[in-house]
Amino acid sequence: MIKLNFEKTNGLIPAIVQDYKTSDVLMLAYMNQDAWEATLSSGNATYYSRSRQNLWVKGETSGNLQRVKEIRIDCDHDTVLLKVKQIGEAACHTGHRSCFHKKIDNGSITVVGKPLFDPKEVYKK
Amino acid sequence: MIKLNFEKTNGLIPAIVQDYKTSDVLMLAYMNQDAWEATLSSGNATYYSRSRQNLWVKGETSGNLQRVKEIRIDCDHDTVLLKVKQIGEAACHTGHRSCFHKKIDNGSITVVGKPLFDPKEVYKK
Repeated sequence: MIKLNFEKTNGLIPAIVQDYKTSDVLMLAYMNQDAWEATLSSGNATYYSRSRQNLWVKGETSGNLQRVKEIRIDCDHDTVLLKVKQIGEAACHTGHRSCFHKKIDNGSITVVGKPLFDPKEVYKK
Repeated sequence: MIKLNFEKTNGLIPAIVQDYKTSDVLMLAYMNQDAWEATLSSGNATYYSRSRQNLWVKGETSGNLQRVKEIRIDCDHDTVLLKVKQIGEAACHTGHRSCFHKKIDNGSITVVGKPLFDPKEVYKK
């Protein structure tokens, strides 16, 4: 098992998630040791949900799993980069392809692109 | 000024840094409010150094500044994505183009690519 430096940031390290084909950054989430091990063993991106305080298999509710195609870690082993195949096209809970759909233009926010699904339908909230 | 959610993570939010042309992820660093404002006003990527505990203009020592070409923020305003022009080619203090040059292959680490500069020469350490 490759050791990551979880100590530096209180047990949670950031994981950048990138589309394995387009290289678009889809989202950023956090991993604890269990999430890291689950990601390695299952091949499905697994994070630690800071709001729910539990292990979170991305897509477990929406069906939009992230199949891991490649894993990189950074020079000092405190950040993960996952290159994934995003099932269902959208990574963001808003229905957008990427969580990073807000562009800063001259001090204001422009939303780039349109949602690919209706969150109300998918999450039944 | 666009408000980011610094409260959620004790005043520091992660900033993903991506090459504006190739979309390669170069590094991840952290920003506090001052770093965010300095990045917006100067157009040079500015972070907060957790080890030195001060504002850090990326490249101030090596000359490898990051000129900001585009800024995105995520859905809940707690992560920044910078698309930059990396001056001097290498973003990593090891001399590699990207900090994410360690690839996980069957439980071991393979280094991808070669350093573009000798850190001993650049940092005079």
